[in-house]
Amino acid sequence: MSRDVTLIIGTKRFSSWSLRPWLAAKMAGLNVAETEIALRQPDTKASILTHSPSGKVPCLIHDGLVVWDSLAICEYLAETFPDAGLWPDDRAARAVARAVSCEMHSGFVALRNACSMDMCAHTPMTELADDLAADIRRISAIWDDCRARFGAGGPFLFGRFSVADAMFAPVVSRFTTYDLPLNDVGRAYCAAMWALAPMQDWKAASV
Amino acid sequence: MSRDVTLIIGTKRFSSWSLRPWLAAKMAGLNVAETEIALRQPDTKASILTHSPSGKVPCLIHDGLVVWDSLAICEYLAETFPDAGLWPDDRAARAVARAVSCEMHSGFVALRNACSMDMCAHTPMTELADDLAADIRRISAIWDDCRARFGAGGPFLFGRFSVADAMFAPVVSRFTTYDLPLNDVGRAYCAAMWALAPMQDWKAASV
Repeated sequence: MSRDVTLIIGTKRFSSWSLRPWLAAKMAGLNVAETEIALRQPDTKASILTHSPSGKVPCLIHDGLVVWDSLAICEYLAETFPDAGLWPDDRAARAVARAVSCEMHSGFVALRNACSMDMCAHTPMTELADDLAADIRRISAIWDDCRARFGAGGPFLFGRFSVADAMFAPVVSRFTTYDLPLNDVGRAYCAAMWALAPMQDWKAASV
Repeated sequence: MSRDVTLIIGTKRFSSWSLRPWLAAKMAGLNVAETEIALRQPDTKASILTHSPSGKVPCLIHDGLVVWDSLAICEYLAETFPDAGLWPDDRAARAVARAVSCEMHSGFVALRNACSMDMCAHTPMTELADDLAADIRRISAIWDDCRARFGAGGPFLFGRFSVADAMFAPVVSRFTTYDLPLNDVGRAYCAAMWALAPMQDWKAASV
């Protein structure tokens, strides 16, 4: 199986959905060719549709197979490159890792709307709307729970880096950009995520 | 591994998220114990929180393990009961099945908002807002593509019943309730889904 993959991604500064599988692919040690499509342009949708049938980024091309959706790409990478260990080895840990990844994939609308990802900005938010505060409390509870139950083997949600961390990477960026409240567990977790070389590379490439 | 599972679900009439893993578990031939929690009541959230840490239905309990989120539960069932064949056997088909399942999990907000699931209603919708029409076109394109590329072995999206069908089951209900436009492929697919005994059972239990 070729270790060369192509990812169609959106503008790195803003494309939270693209960061997830890109980070997973990088952490898996794959050779990642990128096609970056500028978001929020008149021809954005048309450009994306030349690659991705959903009309959305990200989209993976591997050995002629086209796989879209950030979480589906991560699942595909985990399955195709098992040596990378992108899901936890333990079945209970893996089940919870998928639960928090799927919960992130479908939820947290208030956080998405109020705190869109912007890798270049630092705009502290002092007043939190009720729905945003609830999202932040739930994220904090997820991080506390995963770190306490499954985090013994390393600094990430399930110890070793996993798809769950890839799914939460854009949230880590949002916490930093908007100075959202963090407890000690959250602060340590965000620091571990920012210390990853690919996270620094993505940030450096964001303009 | 015990074939007895417990699912915490919301009101069957309305709980689109609950229908998905319930249908997958039934199609896998598991013994499903249900706890149905009435949605839209003052104590709904508190009741759900006694079972599910996300505060949302559905939630699975199996051999002491708690797994929440509709898609994560389906993944767990597929992995734990491989004989049920809940994902397609072919790796390309499986990758696309996950792509459409994940796309459904995170998207189609216009459809969700304008056409909430109501198993007991029949309220034809004659005027479609632009965003709703776009969602319907995309769903139709997904069904056309899956049936054409992977549907040879049966009447479902990937031939044999899979998690992808479980994820789209609430959408099938919406198409029926609101008389949304269907092409021939869509009509045949919805008919195949409604012909499933568990779909009829869920509908019969919706009041």
